[in-house]
Amino acid sequence: MQSRYFTLIDYPEGTPARELFDLRTRELPELGDGEIRVRNTWLSVDPYMRGRMSGVKTYVDPFIAGEPLEGAAVGEVIESRNTRLPAGTRVSHMAGWRDVAQLPGDAVHPLPELDVPDSAFLGVLGMPGMTAWTGLNRIAAMREGDNVLVSAAAGAVGSLAVQLARARGGKGKVVGIAGAPEKLEWLASLGVEPVSYRGKDAGELAADLHKACPEGFDVVYENVGGACLEAALDNLRIGARIAICGLIDSYNATAPAPGPSNLAKLLFNRARMEGFIVTDHWDHYPHFLTTVGPLVAGGEITYRETVEEGLEATPDAFLKLFDGSNTGKMLVKL
Amino acid sequence: MQSRYFTLIDYPEGTPARELFDLRTRELPELGDGEIRVRNTWLSVDPYMRGRMSGVKTYVDPFIAGEPLEGAAVGEVIESRNTRLPAGTRVSHMAGWRDVAQLPGDAVHPLPELDVPDSAFLGVLGMPGMTAWTGLNRIAAMREGDNVLVSAAAGAVGSLAVQLARARGGKGKVVGIAGAPEKLEWLASLGVEPVSYRGKDAGELAADLHKACPEGFDVVYENVGGACLEAALDNLRIGARIAICGLIDSYNATAPAPGPSNLAKLLFNRARMEGFIVTDHWDHYPHFLTTVGPLVAGGEITYRETVEEGLEATPDAFLKLFDGSNTGKMLVKL
Repeated sequence: MQSRYFTLIDYPEGTPARELFDLRTRELPELGDGEIRVRNTWLSVDPYMRGRMSGVKTYVDPFIAGEPLEGAAVGEVIESRNTRLPAGTRVSHMAGWRDVAQLPGDAVHPLPELDVPDSAFLGVLGMPGMTAWTGLNRIAAMREGDNVLVSAAAGAVGSLAVQLARARGGKGKVVGIAGAPEKLEWLASLGVEPVSYRGKDAGELAADLHKACPEGFDVVYENVGGACLEAALDNLRIGARIAICGLIDSYNATAPAPGPSNLAKLLFNRARMEGFIVTDHWDHYPHFLTTVGPLVAGGEITYRETVEEGLEATPDAFLKLFDGSNTGKMLVKL
Repeated sequence: MQSRYFTLIDYPEGTPARELFDLRTRELPELGDGEIRVRNTWLSVDPYMRGRMSGVKTYVDPFIAGEPLEGAAVGEVIESRNTRLPAGTRVSHMAGWRDVAQLPGDAVHPLPELDVPDSAFLGVLGMPGMTAWTGLNRIAAMREGDNVLVSAAAGAVGSLAVQLARARGGKGKVVGIAGAPEKLEWLASLGVEPVSYRGKDAGELAADLHKACPEGFDVVYENVGGACLEAALDNLRIGARIAICGLIDSYNATAPAPGPSNLAKLLFNRARMEGFIVTDHWDHYPHFLTTVGPLVAGGEITYRETVEEGLEATPDAFLKLFDGSNTGKMLVKL
C-alpha cells in the first residue's frame, strides 16, 4: 500500500515558499506486530509547525527535510495488527500531512465518546482547545470576575479562550483582538468586546484597548506578540498574569524584531508573564475533556473551522495561517 | 528648630541635572502630641527614587516639586512627645534628604537589636537587602542547586542577592554581572563568577554568560534590563524564573528603548518573568531580619558601602547611582 505525504525540500527563511513543500509517494512496509494503518480524514495545520521548519531545535524537534512532515490528524483504522484497535476505530495521532499513516498502536488515541464531529478533536477539543484551557487556567490562573484580553481571538486557540473566559462568570470583561470585520462581528456575537488591530501601531491599539476596558486586564492570553503584547502591557491591572501561548508575529521574521519597550509595566503592576508549551500539561487532557467536552457537545461553546479540501491543499492551508485568512481552526479535509 | 532639606525645583527629563536639587531651610512647627524630632545620621539614596522624580504616578506617588524629597534614613530621637520613643532612641524612617525630621511616632521604627552598624539598616538589612531576599525567595522561588544570575551584582541589592544565592547551598553556580574591575574582583572574592558587561552588546554578553554557566540559569535576578535582560533570556534553563527588581538601564531614558528581541525564549523554556515591588511584601520583613540579620552580624554575609559626607552631597550621591560608580550601598553620612 502507498502513502502520499508532504515533505520539505529545504528549510525556509522568512515566509515559506509554496515550492518548498513537495508531495511524494512511498510504499508502506508490511504491518508489524501491534501496528495499524490509518486512512486520515482530517489534517490539522498549526502555527507552531513553523518553528519545526527551521532545522533548529526549539521546544520540539525540527522537521527533517525529505521526511514526511508531521502534525495532528484524525482518521479511521483500515488495517490492524493490534487487538485494541480493530479496523473501523476512529483515532487521533500526530502523523498528519499524509493520506495514509502507518503507526504503532500506542502512537494513536481512539476518539473519545462525545457527540461532536471528528474534526473537533483537532480543534476545540484537541490541542488548540487544550492550549486555550491550559493557558487561562493553569498558567494565568484566571479567576471569576477577571478582565481578560485575548489576541488572535478569532483563531483556533483564541476563539476558545474568549469563550472559556466568558463562561467563567463574574462581571469581568472579555476583550478580543482580531483584524477582519467578519471576525470582529463573530467575536461580538459571542459576547466578546472586539478590538481591531488593523492599521494601528502599539500606541493606538493600547488606546483602543483602554477604551474597551478602562480598568485594565487581569489576564492576558497572548498569541501574537509585537504590537499586541506592547499594547497589552500598557493596559495591565496590578497583579496581572500574561500567558504567552505563541508569538506568531515573529515566526516568519528573518531578523530579530525589537521587543516591547514597556516591560517596566511588569514592574509597576507586579505582573507576571509566563511562556508555556501545552504538551507539558498533557496529563490534564482528560480533565479538560470532561470539563469542556460537554460544553461543546451541548452547543454552549461554539467553534468555527476554515476547511481546505484535499491533501494537495495542505501547504496552502498552512500558509494561510500567517495572513490572517482563517477564522477558527484551519483544517484540511481528505 | 530648623530643618535643612533638599527639594526638586522641577521634574527632570533624562538624567537629572544637579541644579534641579535645591537645598532649603524651614522652621519646624511645634512638636505635636505623639510626635518626635529625629537628627538623621545616615541618608539612603536609591535608584527607585528616579521614578518618583517624573511627576507621574508609577507604583509610588511622585515627589512634589518644592516639598522635601523623601527616602530611607536612620537617626536618633532628639525631642519627643511620644512615650514609646524617648530621646536617644535610634530609629529608621522615610524622611530622608534632610538633617532633622519631624514625624509622628508611628512613622518610625526603632532599630532592631543586632550587633551591626546603624547604616546596615539602610542597606543589607534594610530595603535593599529585603528586596534581594524577596526577589530570590518569594518571586523566583530559588531552590537549592539552582544556577543563579544577578545583574548589577555589586550594587546594594545585587551584592546581597549573590551572597544569598551562594548561601543557599547545592552545586548551583552563581554568576554576577558588573562593570568595574574592582567590582568583578570583589564578586570573585565572594565565590561568585563575575562577568563584565563593559563594551559588549547583548549577543557578546550572552556568549560570555554561556561560558560562565553553559547549563543556563534557573533563576535570574534582574536589576538592569537592556542588554543584560536580553543576554539572560538567551541563557535560560527550562522552567526558569526571572524576578524583575529594577530596570535601571531605562530610568533616565527620554524615549522608549526597544525591549529584548528574544522574548520567545520565555516560550521555548516555559519560563516566567515577574515584576515585584518590595513594599508589597513588607509583612515578611521580620522573617527576613531573623534569617539574614544573624548572617550579617556573624560576618557570613558581607557588604560594602560607598559613603558621601554631608547633607550637601546627597544629590551627588544619588546621581552616582546611574554611572556605576558605587560599590554596594550608596549612603550619605551626616
